[in-house]
Amino acid sequence: MRVAVLAHEQFPDRAKTAVGVLRYADHDVVAVLDRDSAGTTVADHVADLDADTPVVEGVADAPAFDALVVGIAPIGGGFDDSWRPDVRAAIERGADVVAGLHYLLNDDAEFARLADEHGVELRDIRRPPDDLTVAEGVARELDCEVVLTVGTDCSTGKMTTTLELVEAARERGLDAGFVPTGQTGIMIAGSGIPVDRTVSDFTAGAVERMLRERGDDHDYLVVEGQGSIVHPAYSAVTCGILHGAMPDHLVLCHEAGREAVHGYESFSLPDPGRVAALYVDLAGEVAPTELLGGALNTSGLTESDAEAALAEYEAAIDAPAVDPVRQDAGELLEEL
Amino acid sequence: MRVAVLAHEQFPDRAKTAVGVLRYADHDVVAVLDRDSAGTTVADHVADLDADTPVVEGVADAPAFDALVVGIAPIGGGFDDSWRPDVRAAIERGADVVAGLHYLLNDDAEFARLADEHGVELRDIRRPPDDLTVAEGVARELDCEVVLTVGTDCSTGKMTTTLELVEAARERGLDAGFVPTGQTGIMIAGSGIPVDRTVSDFTAGAVERMLRERGDDHDYLVVEGQGSIVHPAYSAVTCGILHGAMPDHLVLCHEAGREAVHGYESFSLPDPGRVAALYVDLAGEVAPTELLGGALNTSGLTESDAEAALAEYEAAIDAPAVDPVRQDAGELLEEL
Repeated sequence: MRVAVLAHEQFPDRAKTAVGVLRYADHDVVAVLDRDSAGTTVADHVADLDADTPVVEGVADAPAFDALVVGIAPIGGGFDDSWRPDVRAAIERGADVVAGLHYLLNDDAEFARLADEHGVELRDIRRPPDDLTVAEGVARELDCEVVLTVGTDCSTGKMTTTLELVEAARERGLDAGFVPTGQTGIMIAGSGIPVDRTVSDFTAGAVERMLRERGDDHDYLVVEGQGSIVHPAYSAVTCGILHGAMPDHLVLCHEAGREAVHGYESFSLPDPGRVAALYVDLAGEVAPTELLGGALNTSGLTESDAEAALAEYEAAIDAPAVDPVRQDAGELLEEL
Repeated sequence: MRVAVLAHEQFPDRAKTAVGVLRYADHDVVAVLDRDSAGTTVADHVADLDADTPVVEGVADAPAFDALVVGIAPIGGGFDDSWRPDVRAAIERGADVVAGLHYLLNDDAEFARLADEHGVELRDIRRPPDDLTVAEGVARELDCEVVLTVGTDCSTGKMTTTLELVEAARERGLDAGFVPTGQTGIMIAGSGIPVDRTVSDFTAGAVERMLRERGDDHDYLVVEGQGSIVHPAYSAVTCGILHGAMPDHLVLCHEAGREAVHGYESFSLPDPGRVAALYVDLAGEVAPTELLGGALNTSGLTESDAEAALAEYEAAIDAPAVDPVRQDAGELLEEL
């Protein structure tokens, strides 16, 4: 699928969805829309992406594409009206539009009418399906092994780790599928359920449904986790994923040096080893699991400090650990 | 308010909402609808309710009432179409209809049209407020002590235990408030948020909000728990309540002799002592808590078997335990 990615005024640093799509999606990104950087290429902005994909002013300057992806998500998830001409032009060119905003494209009268007129689809990624149900408790019976990334906190690199694990598995000849649970992951995969937006009773069921849909197609499924089991606000989502996915293996994601819950600074983070044990115990009462290893985000550290942090982390969780961006995530797969 | 309670084919053993309303709500129950037991009375089925309330075939046989309460909740929360004639007849008689199903009466075209036509209200108890948010993590700062009932499974007596604890506390002169989280509790209390129906990201926030609204009015709040932390489908809700409520004290509810997860019989229940430890550990990483005691449902046992089961349960959880229906739940409050 050929896609154009809208990231006006925010590429690349405040456009994590756009960068995620460029880095991990199977799509052929034909252009990034950012009126502030028109005339440059992606490689000018993101050093490790050697893409000569052009950054353009708007849809009119982009080569042919099948879908426009909204690759930015302002705080609050609103739709910025300065994007309207591009969305309109994309629809008029016959392209689908994909967005993960709280504001639903399908609820916008103009877009809905235009989409209908031009026979294109408006895909609101953040809307879970209407027909979710409670879990049946069958994920363990699927004919594939399930790896779940879990975290000591939110924003510890679970999505990146999940995608790096899938890629590393494929490089090793393993047939691995990606199970996204958040909006960026869903855009990269092209489908999926935003698990933090489901009815709480159906959280585990939503994950189970994704696994059932994909279980026959792969030998391994790597599930993107969310939040943390020791998070004062988000643990419900984490727990639903943990029990709905019934993972055979866990990978614990942590950011080096983080000592308090992100955004909830009065809550100190427990030792990662305790968090790991709690995940294994909690999952294990429903379906036995084991800690495959750890993923440590060392992006703020020098090479030698990162090495020391990794050694310390491995000791804390009593399992091998890597930084999946600096190193090869595949080292964690040796045990499979 | 005069109410008729619909409990077709399930009264009393699988009609916990019906029995809860009969036992605890302030309503005048004029009839129970159960086509399997038409011609009997409530007292024929529930020994400790000395109500001569008739059990009838359907709405046509019931005395005048102001509201029809759907008193059964199948797994999944669907609407059974065999109930449709009674709901229709109730509306046509000018009665409101109150239900706590996932299936919303207001979304049913026929019921919505009929209700409009007859000027009655369809009250979907299970619909949460539209303005819920993520938890701020402040429940522990409230000026009251929080007791949370938790369970080894669903349907172990958490709502009953919660209501009995509130009653027992009041009898002892303690200023205790009830925080309902499920449809039956909300029906009994007259207000509350159905926590299993919130957006998963807002589960803890919904509980926190109820505590903040009630915290200044009482010295003690007793929160009705849901599900179980070791449940393959419902643990997300349980975990959200546990971290959103930040309870000072836990009471673990269990049914004597239950060995597998209700409705998920291939999952055996862990030893109650392990479940208790898991609750204390999981809660404790966010806000320290302690096990106040246990509540054991011994309704299926003889008096002497019940005593033996209680002794065994106390040993398993290493804390005092009562059957809050046979005995005085207040014994658990001695420690407060």
